[in-house]
Amino acid sequence: MSWNTFGRTLRFTTWGESHGPAIGAVVDGCPPGIALSEGDIQPYLDARRPGQNKFTTQRQEPDAVRILSGVFEGKTTGTPISLLIENTDQRSKDYSEIANTYRPGHADYAYDAKYGFRDYRGGGRSSARETAMRVAAGAVARKVIGEVSILAYVAEIGGDAVDPANFDAGEIARNPFWCPDAAAAKRWEALVDEARKAGSSLGAVVECVATGVPAGWGAPVYAKLDADLAAGMMSINAVKGVEIGDGFGAARLTGEQNADPMRPSLNEGGNDGPRFEANHAGGIAGGISTGQPVTCRVAFKPTSSILTPVESVTRDGEATEVRTKGRHDPCVGIRGTPVVEAMMALVLADHKLLHRAQCG
Amino acid sequence: MSWNTFGRTLRFTTWGESHGPAIGAVVDGCPPGIALSEGDIQPYLDARRPGQNKFTTQRQEPDAVRILSGVFEGKTTGTPISLLIENTDQRSKDYSEIANTYRPGHADYAYDAKYGFRDYRGGGRSSARETAMRVAAGAVARKVIGEVSILAYVAEIGGDAVDPANFDAGEIARNPFWCPDAAAAKRWEALVDEARKAGSSLGAVVECVATGVPAGWGAPVYAKLDADLAAGMMSINAVKGVEIGDGFGAARLTGEQNADPMRPSLNEGGNDGPRFEANHAGGIAGGISTGQPVTCRVAFKPTSSILTPVESVTRDGEATEVRTKGRHDPCVGIRGTPVVEAMMALVLADHKLLHRAQCG
Amino acid sequence: MSWNTFGRTLRFTTWGESHGPAIGAVVDGCPPGIALSEGDIQPYLDARRPGQNKFTTQRQEPDAVRILSGVFEGKTTGTPISLLIENTDQRSKDYSEIANTYRPGHADYAYDAKYGFRDYRGGGRSSARETAMRVAAGAVARKVIGEVSILAYVAEIGGDAVDPANFDAGEIARNPFWCPDAAAAKRWEALVDEARKAGSSLGAVVECVATGVPAGWGAPVYAKLDADLAAGMMSINAVKGVEIGDGFGAARLTGEQNADPMRPSLNEGGNDGPRFEANHAGGIAGGISTGQPVTCRVAFKPTSSILTPVESVTRDGEATEVRTKGRHDPCVGIRGTPVVEAMMALVLADHKLLHRAQCG
Amino acid sequence: MSWNTFGRTLRFTTWGESHGPAIGAVVDGCPPGIALSEGDIQPYLDARRPGQNKFTTQRQEPDAVRILSGVFEGKTTGTPISLLIENTDQRSKDYSEIANTYRPGHADYAYDAKYGFRDYRGGGRSSARETAMRVAAGAVARKVIGEVSILAYVAEIGGDAVDPANFDAGEIARNPFWCPDAAAAKRWEALVDEARKAGSSLGAVVECVATGVPAGWGAPVYAKLDADLAAGMMSINAVKGVEIGDGFGAARLTGEQNADPMRPSLNEGGNDGPRFEANHAGGIAGGISTGQPVTCRVAFKPTSSILTPVESVTRDGEATEVRTKGRHDPCVGIRGTPVVEAMMALVLADHKLLHRAQCG
Repeated sequence: MSWNTFGRTLRFTTWGESHGPAIGAVVDGCPPGIALSEGDIQPYLDARRPGQNKFTTQRQEPDAVRILSGVFEGKTTGTPISLLIENTDQRSKDYSEIANTYRPGHADYAYDAKYGFRDYRGGGRSSARETAMRVAAGAVARKVIGEVSILAYVAEIGGDAVDPANFDAGEIARNPFWCPDAAAAKRWEALVDEARKAGSSLGAVVECVATGVPAGWGAPVYAKLDADLAAGMMSINAVKGVEIGDGFGAARLTGEQNADPMRPSLNEGGNDGPRFEANHAGGIAGGISTGQPVTCRVAFKPTSSILTPVESVTRDGEATEVRTKGRHDPCVGIRGTPVVEAMMALVLADHKLLHRAQCG
Repeated sequence: MSWNTFGRTLRFTTWGESHGPAIGAVVDGCPPGIALSEGDIQPYLDARRPGQNKFTTQRQEPDAVRILSGVFEGKTTGTPISLLIENTDQRSKDYSEIANTYRPGHADYAYDAKYGFRDYRGGGRSSARETAMRVAAGAVARKVIGEVSILAYVAEIGGDAVDPANFDAGEIARNPFWCPDAAAAKRWEALVDEARKAGSSLGAVVECVATGVPAGWGAPVYAKLDADLAAGMMSINAVKGVEIGDGFGAARLTGEQNADPMRPSLNEGGNDGPRFEANHAGGIAGGISTGQPVTCRVAFKPTSSILTPVESVTRDGEATEVRTKGRHDPCVGIRGTPVVEAMMALVLADHKLLHRAQCG
Repeated sequence: MSWNTFGRTLRFTTWGESHGPAIGAVVDGCPPGIALSEGDIQPYLDARRPGQNKFTTQRQEPDAVRILSGVFEGKTTGTPISLLIENTDQRSKDYSEIANTYRPGHADYAYDAKYGFRDYRGGGRSSARETAMRVAAGAVARKVIGEVSILAYVAEIGGDAVDPANFDAGEIARNPFWCPDAAAAKRWEALVDEARKAGSSLGAVVECVATGVPAGWGAPVYAKLDADLAAGMMSINAVKGVEIGDGFGAARLTGEQNADPMRPSLNEGGNDGPRFEANHAGGIAGGISTGQPVTCRVAFKPTSSILTPVESVTRDGEATEVRTKGRHDPCVGIRGTPVVEAMMALVLADHKLLHRAQCG
Repeated sequence: MSWNTFGRTLRFTTWGESHGPAIGAVVDGCPPGIALSEGDIQPYLDARRPGQNKFTTQRQEPDAVRILSGVFEGKTTGTPISLLIENTDQRSKDYSEIANTYRPGHADYAYDAKYGFRDYRGGGRSSARETAMRVAAGAVARKVIGEVSILAYVAEIGGDAVDPANFDAGEIARNPFWCPDAAAAKRWEALVDEARKAGSSLGAVVECVATGVPAGWGAPVYAKLDADLAAGMMSINAVKGVEIGDGFGAARLTGEQNADPMRPSLNEGGNDGPRFEANHAGGIAGGISTGQPVTCRVAFKPTSSILTPVESVTRDGEATEVRTKGRHDPCVGIRGTPVVEAMMALVLADHKLLHRAQCG
């Protein structure tokens, strides 16, 4: 019910504005006795952090996370884990001239319509800066689901998709795009650089695969694992679409093509579940995990912060034009990749606990 | 938190299995004093009801809804509204032979993995029959948002899409496919009939548009209107993808192409908000409605209930084959259309009240 | 968040008015595989049922419960359990003349102030009839906590308290007052009969003890076991006070008197926790169970339905007098006893699952 | 559902341990546009702060609150308000010797039983230090309910009660006991000082009255205003009992004595509701406010931190004795008074918004 809280059993609440003194998250319901330190969280924040190369915003922030509660002698205590990052590189002046103008494609007008006014500095609460706290909370969630491995990567930028035949997980960390296809990464370099120089922006599709999820997580009907994933992913800034498994592609298949046939387990006892011969379903049936990899795809729109002037209105309803001169990403989907991983971890960890509550 | 409850302020809980004595919903938090009778709900159920033509399952049920509480002298009292539909045409025997077999693509294996056993009659709780109660609850929600009009239609079946140039809202009710394009409806007749005769099945894409939503509904960050829509739509049986506005298409646009420019209100006072010159965003920015139509697209997979045998395993882990001989839909997306409308109504009504709570 | 839902993990929602066609409850989150039938629930309803002797209201209802979902082949499936009781003996006419009058001490005026109108038949949603569904849901909860025994009894009627020295658990079911003290039961017979004849009413205090609760249920800070018990008990009709352990009595003790000293376990391994030499705390410390019996006391006011005229006003604000001629209990606390037991069971079962979620 | 979150619509989450670097609260759902600064919160914290006289613990902390988010240009923005207080005077060494011992009456054993280990420094999460954040959050809540005035005071210490005939609201702030009866305050000075010198402790009863609450806040059945008050108050450290209105006293009245007669409004239009001639009900009927003052009483046990040795066990199950030498309050109920006020404000503010959600 909370506006700024996500999760059912493992819940986290984020707070903070882009240009306030700090941002933070409170992770509640974490099992006790799990080894946790800032060192477990910081690498994920570093991966998300802007300013690392010319393909992402040049805002420079160390984004050093502090754990303020819920950990004692290096282990989680079962009480709320408070995470905090100070905002250090804020340059509020960059945004002063948009205080009275609605940036098209941004939440400016919607916030004003809802609340009557807004913190206009860097988008305030609507800034993608909030996602840093998802990444931090997600690092905690990963500790809760040690049996699961999560891998996200960019599958498409500006309509240029990776070739599944070239998929190489090792490649992902070797280029600035989280791209699993070396050839595509090469092409994207030109593509994104061109957009950057032109002050334009590009959309992206991020794919995420979680392996090791046991069968049985999720629940009918409104706590379906895929419904919670959809909510989690759609709540990320700039996301406009979510697919589980084949997603919209499944709508173009016949029932025969879409079938995920099952074969007996290779394990003699058979208690590791059936072998599936396909995974169109993305590892979820009836809202419950099947033991196959849980897969989803997430569409990021191009950021609306572009140099080309776009028609808009002022707060007083007068016509104006807006072009964004601040520091922005030519393709926000790139930096969204660690956020997608974090949300996958948070949803799965929550459902692990939820399943344990009901089914022991 | 509840497994079978949806919503934050206007909440509904559904219960019931496909072949139990009845199914039902409890709608809680409805504002008082709203005129409501079974006659307000039944037409939506009739529209969803199977057995109306050869393109949907031949299961025959009157699906007559009863209001058991929360209404007095024809008006809602503000207390929980209990809705109940008796199951009358159950034919449990149709399903007896699958008790020990996992139907591929169905939730059979996942339920067993989670709960240790399952009500195998017609899919039990995983049956799309549950969606009847969403439609009933949705009819109540519509009463809460009299300012909003909701229209859903099938935009694509088996990969064959409507032509936007042919869009005619009046056509939607004139064919059995909720199709707004007469030419497409003609083509689909052959397409679906062919699938039906072959015992095959087809996927579909349903689009939904809500007009009249004022700016300001929704909220950062985890109560975003689009995040709740994504959860609501993804929780519908057979849904594998959700898009808001341009969705995955937006990932292929540049920032310039994806812009939704704003112009001054034509209204002299200007207090009806800016005019938008495009709606790539689907009426939502930063998780909050902008006053534009709220649009989404929902992908339905082809039902896994097909006549073609698919490899599977028994509960004991033995190899077997499954072909579905029961009464099923060749394209479940068709009957999903009123369900999509209902979920749109439920999400919007909930956010209307949520907005009122915080912002008066 | 739901108005008519209680619980965090094992949740139940009740619906229905005193004089509608039926009342019901939906229990969600129940673990699967638990044997459950109407026969497990009915005895608790029979114990609560009115009309059994001259000391309780003469309303006659069989209160036969039906399970409409969530149970298959005699076992819970893990899906929502819908429970329904038809209202059969409604006599709406008894209440017709109070439609326009606010009964003092009842919720009539408050409901009108909130909702603008009300279902005045028998108190509508505010009727104690709702508690029948708590008893039914509580019977399900008891199945979830087989390790726990719950015993409630009336400790005081009209200020006349039982003598702890006379406590005999076997006596409780042998008198119409759930009284554990044969001598007190004798006195109460005269006391309650006098009140009944005079058309007056008496308050009562109910005590409840749950034994077998393991240490570790409950949680800081707002999910404290005692906080949830307080909410659950205070939500029962006519309840005005709740105590845990010594309650208000503890406020009159010194720290030395209130101490619950601990001694080493008699069990050699010691893993059954310390022995406590007193239980002023009522089995809860820091919101978490200690392994001692969980105890609480609940104060029921005398029902406001009395024959003596009380000054009041009409809906139009005119002065009037109200005397209640319907069928009512001279001491509602008596029939509240099974309801207190039910709420204890529901809170404990919920916390068992909640603890399992976080701590495995 | 969250363990450390309270509220339905206006929700707050607290975090932090007694001896960690800081404690904090996140208040979510606050209406926008409300003037708020640290200066609105600090006075309430100062009132609660320990170390102000010899009757409370000598721990010295400035408890300076910082607002880290949710306020812009002096007004609430509608986004989460993060409040933080640094812990400065921790003296962890005071507690080092109890790391391996269970203090009787404290949560030490229960925490270990639940979580397997605990942050033993000053009670960790179970410390009353958490209540500072309730007071801070409560100060925000007060801003939401400008129409309501809240007054709490100590009505009884160590069994010595104030005389209602001496009640003087102006006296409350003039003595160190929040005592409205100058004569009682005089007596308590000796009483508490004696307990302090003896290393003993005393219980207390705190009363709280909220005036200006309009009729109609609260809701059936599990969102009753009194049920939420009961939960809120019982969740405060050391609280063992909660009464609404006459509470346990009502259980000793007859229906005639307990009646709250209503008379026509003095206001000619009559739309300010009936005049009540008594308030045994404590301003709540059927879980909904009646427009009368909302009253409750809260019982605080004597703190278990006393100098007299009490038998206990070590973590290894060995017999030991515990006497508490740290800085503690001889009567924790005194400092609980501002906390009771805060919880009243938080519950009322939440229900104001909840009522607005449903009833406009």
